[in-house]
Amino acid sequence: MLIRLPSGQEIDNIPGESILKALKRHGIYLVASCGGKGICGKCHIRVLEGTFQTTTSGKLDFRQTDSGSVLACQTYPEEDLSIDIPKESKLVVGDIIETARATDLLGLFQTLDGTLSPLVQWISLQIPQPTIQNNFSDLERLIKALEGQNIKDLIFSHSFVLSLADSLRQAGWQIMLGYTGNKEVFSLSPLPQKERFGIAIDIGTTTIVVYLVSLSDGRVVNVGSTYNSQIRHGDDVITRIVYATENAGLQELMDAVVNDVNTIVTQLAENHGISQDDIESAVIAGNTTMAHLFWGLNPAYIREEPYIPTLNEFPLWKAGAAALAMHSQAPVYTLPCIASYIGGDIVAGVLASKMHRHPEISLFLDIGTNGEIVVGNNEWLVTAACSAGPCFEGSGIKQGMRATEGAVETVKINRQTLDPSLGVIGQGKPLGICGSGMIDAISELFLSGVIDQKGRFIKESKTDRIREGFEGVEFLFYQDSQREIVLTEVDIENILRAKAAIYAGISLLLKKTGFSLNDIEHIYIAGGFGNYLNVERAITIGMLPDLPAEKFIFLGNTAIAGAYLCLLSENMRKEAEEISRKMTNIELSVSRQFMDEYLSALFLPHTDISQFPTVADLLKKK
Amino acid sequence: MLIRLPSGQEIDNIPGESILKALKRHGIYLVASCGGKGICGKCHIRVLEGTFQTTTSGKLDFRQTDSGSVLACQTYPEEDLSIDIPKESKLVVGDIIETARATDLLGLFQTLDGTLSPLVQWISLQIPQPTIQNNFSDLERLIKALEGQNIKDLIFSHSFVLSLADSLRQAGWQIMLGYTGNKEVFSLSPLPQKERFGIAIDIGTTTIVVYLVSLSDGRVVNVGSTYNSQIRHGDDVITRIVYATENAGLQELMDAVVNDVNTIVTQLAENHGISQDDIESAVIAGNTTMAHLFWGLNPAYIREEPYIPTLNEFPLWKAGAAALAMHSQAPVYTLPCIASYIGGDIVAGVLASKMHRHPEISLFLDIGTNGEIVVGNNEWLVTAACSAGPCFEGSGIKQGMRATEGAVETVKINRQTLDPSLGVIGQGKPLGICGSGMIDAISELFLSGVIDQKGRFIKESKTDRIREGFEGVEFLFYQDSQREIVLTEVDIENILRAKAAIYAGISLLLKKTGFSLNDIEHIYIAGGFGNYLNVERAITIGMLPDLPAEKFIFLGNTAIAGAYLCLLSENMRKEAEEISRKMTNIELSVSRQFMDEYLSALFLPHTDISQFPTVADLLKKK
Repeated sequence: MLIRLPSGQEIDNIPGESILKALKRHGIYLVASCGGKGICGKCHIRVLEGTFQTTTSGKLDFRQTDSGSVLACQTYPEEDLSIDIPKESKLVVGDIIETARATDLLGLFQTLDGTLSPLVQWISLQIPQPTIQNNFSDLERLIKALEGQNIKDLIFSHSFVLSLADSLRQAGWQIMLGYTGNKEVFSLSPLPQKERFGIAIDIGTTTIVVYLVSLSDGRVVNVGSTYNSQIRHGDDVITRIVYATENAGLQELMDAVVNDVNTIVTQLAENHGISQDDIESAVIAGNTTMAHLFWGLNPAYIREEPYIPTLNEFPLWKAGAAALAMHSQAPVYTLPCIASYIGGDIVAGVLASKMHRHPEISLFLDIGTNGEIVVGNNEWLVTAACSAGPCFEGSGIKQGMRATEGAVETVKINRQTLDPSLGVIGQGKPLGICGSGMIDAISELFLSGVIDQKGRFIKESKTDRIREGFEGVEFLFYQDSQREIVLTEVDIENILRAKAAIYAGISLLLKKTGFSLNDIEHIYIAGGFGNYLNVERAITIGMLPDLPAEKFIFLGNTAIAGAYLCLLSENMRKEAEEISRKMTNIELSVSRQFMDEYLSALFLPHTDISQFPTVADLLKKK
Repeated sequence: MLIRLPSGQEIDNIPGESILKALKRHGIYLVASCGGKGICGKCHIRVLEGTFQTTTSGKLDFRQTDSGSVLACQTYPEEDLSIDIPKESKLVVGDIIETARATDLLGLFQTLDGTLSPLVQWISLQIPQPTIQNNFSDLERLIKALEGQNIKDLIFSHSFVLSLADSLRQAGWQIMLGYTGNKEVFSLSPLPQKERFGIAIDIGTTTIVVYLVSLSDGRVVNVGSTYNSQIRHGDDVITRIVYATENAGLQELMDAVVNDVNTIVTQLAENHGISQDDIESAVIAGNTTMAHLFWGLNPAYIREEPYIPTLNEFPLWKAGAAALAMHSQAPVYTLPCIASYIGGDIVAGVLASKMHRHPEISLFLDIGTNGEIVVGNNEWLVTAACSAGPCFEGSGIKQGMRATEGAVETVKINRQTLDPSLGVIGQGKPLGICGSGMIDAISELFLSGVIDQKGRFIKESKTDRIREGFEGVEFLFYQDSQREIVLTEVDIENILRAKAAIYAGISLLLKKTGFSLNDIEHIYIAGGFGNYLNVERAITIGMLPDLPAEKFIFLGNTAIAGAYLCLLSENMRKEAEEISRKMTNIELSVSRQFMDEYLSALFLPHTDISQFPTVADLLKKK
């Protein structure tokens, strides 16, 4: 059977294959946050012509189903079909996306260390030419020259020795030899040596960021980023892990992330006339699942009790093992992970925040696809993953989406008319609502008296925007001929759960360590979402603690910053490893105390309003 | 254009391509000792129909050219041809060939060492199962268990870690862990452990021998051998090196030897129901060029003054680097080489001879495709390669061939009639003459007075077997309707050169070390040729020193014996490395003293007949 797309393209459909899978097989990807399980409702399409079977309509309401909308993952053609794919259902990955460039990383490096000592060290060697009297082999000759510089016991790989004889002669026996911290010889090059490059990679569940860095001076040459194309198989680490355990899923996920990185690296290198072989080292920061998937390691046991990763401290493997588009023998340093749900991105973040160097107590918060919290100082560090879930990236929210064009990012509600005014990314028509928009919306709905402390709609509110929807009560934010944008009570519940998880995590870590909110000197907010976050609104809904604005510091992407630091310096790598050894992970999912904190935090802003004095003031004013 | 073969098969011929190359491209190989340069005359074929161009007829005489014989390497079709390929021109490689099985290697091992310590050591580990309280990662858990047994700082490869999580769980946390001497982790296996296997490989220029060995008890499970299919590209190391520097020659030569080894290993493993993954280590003994080609290393500089190999002491590389048909992570130990023309086969030979352990002075002689000599005892060892060339394997001799079916291996000449009686391998019609046949023939021609001390035919001899041939005077040994077998004066000259090189090498090494022939207690004869060698005849022609028969000890294939010892034992590998460090190579090609010794040894048996008292007696009797 054939499926005809709006473009006129026709693709074949294998019997028993859903439309989602048929499209996927032809390289056409839809948003499928749940991984195609019929739960998230994001892959909706319209069938214009033809009969089909559909097993569930998920989150679609009758208005949508009436107009021919179905979930692509649950729909099986019975004859040739013509379909239409609405804009919000299309998944855009693979393109290089815009990303905020980290501010003055070189400056950060200089304040922290300043000594350039990348993964590959280079030494200049003048090797005596062989003669009939001095007829040692090439390798013995090289080893003797190294011993003359007091460098011993290096390990020579087969691939290095393969080109040794010719390389030595072509270089006229005057060479630079590169070797790694674990004594493996990397490569040799003739004099004068060319500029050397490395890449720092942040593998986020949603976004991949790559910095191309000059290892000669630490300069960031260029930056690229893209959505992690693993998104095709689900939004959060759990859906990815599930996918990895199916058929060839693991290999597919590994290929996806490596291809993403390679696409960026290839383009960056090309733009700057850099040969891939001149990229001699890489550092990777990612959460534990992302690090596992990058290296092709089975992540199944991360998800199963007792939640065991294959490894947290990664040996220095070679780029060739992951088929990265750089020198195949290049060492790749993976930032150490702490536990199944606290990864190298958090270690990188702490490193970049410098909180581990100072005696005052800081709180580090990374709200990305999941939420991770670190509390501590130069003596101790505790951390927890608070399973906030990817709702702030749109997942699990009926019309949620990432902070890309068309996303509602700010919401104001007129206290009298209760009509909203929306700020949309790109100034066009809204397609959905992103994380900062959700926080704004709930904060405004709450302060306007449209929802109560439990997030339930107060039906007596004087507006007809509150209405009964397919999934219960909802608030209509926007309407045009093509779509309506609502926030349902279920959506609000999901957002409250996420914010409660974050706040409860913070509370619990403080209690466990015997400190209170007032003991916190700095709150570091990391992650892409942090950039758009309105602290005041986040306090209003009880997501962030009610502390003075000046204590909040936005750090941007600290995962890439930490990876960059480790790319440049042995000291930074040691410091990251010390951080990882020092950090204690608290497993929240098994803590009864956490459950208590969480239930209290499910309210707006909290059952204990005394923890939110400024919000209490706002409510009083109302 | 097409070439029609005797079988009826037709192959295409690209314009400008010789018949030899066209046949090669279709997997049909001819004997081409010189590598197809028109010199050796071995690739002769007959053109039955069609016109062609032929640039030189090499060693073919008018009788051959008259009957339509041409050199395939020098002949270019001008139209479709029909050809005939005589038996002696066909190269048989690839088939598993018969080889003398080394006698009681296990016994040898027990007298030398007896402690089994292969390249992979195994340790049994009982690893505590993870729980929510004890939630270290799999790798940390394994490392802790190893530390409990005082094993630290092991290196975990990417490929090992890839399967770690599943393997540990499948094994129920009770495992055997294998790791190598340089601390690389090899593999883990569940209990109870299966029998483990290794392979010892002798890579000869002509013959490849593989022993499949049980590493559990040292037993030789089975033996296989084959011609080194690099023969397709020339007989000796020099032609191979030349070929390696042409186009993709290096890769072709590497593939050839690896395929040969793999063919044997696969068959041996299959016959014994052994999985390739259960072959966990390998040891390689080969001359320096063979070791380079096996590992794909450019051998060009071995041949160019000042004769520098890429390396003599090989790191422990992995089987995967050479694509050997065994566990890809299996360590492969390459016996250390001494210099460009003294390789690991000689180190292996000395090890197997035990001469390095005893105070009395021994002489070790390996006459294979080249000739290598070692003199020494437990305190010192000197060695030299005497560039005898592969003439005893048939190369450079008009009708020379290897000791296979159809080869004349013994010759007797009736002192009265001067008629020869020939012993032929396989008892069929003779096709050519092999090394032991040549020594016999010259010894008999000399003692019968047919040739003089310089190897020249005495024309007054009462026989019409001496006749003028295409290349000068020759002696007719055999004649039937299809072929004649002769030894020409040029052939005799070549054989005298080879025997002179060996004897001069021995003399020089003794002089350099201040010893005389009488100081030698044992003469160890190694190599396949040694098995067929008649010592008395070899003394008669002045190839071996005139010492009592009881001092000569035939050791057979010592390269494989040494490789076998190193496969089983760390002590043996250390001993091989001590031998290699202790051994001093004398470069004969640049020694004027050697040239003097050589010129004296060109006579039958020697200009100084006093060095050959028993031969003097024989001549007196005559």
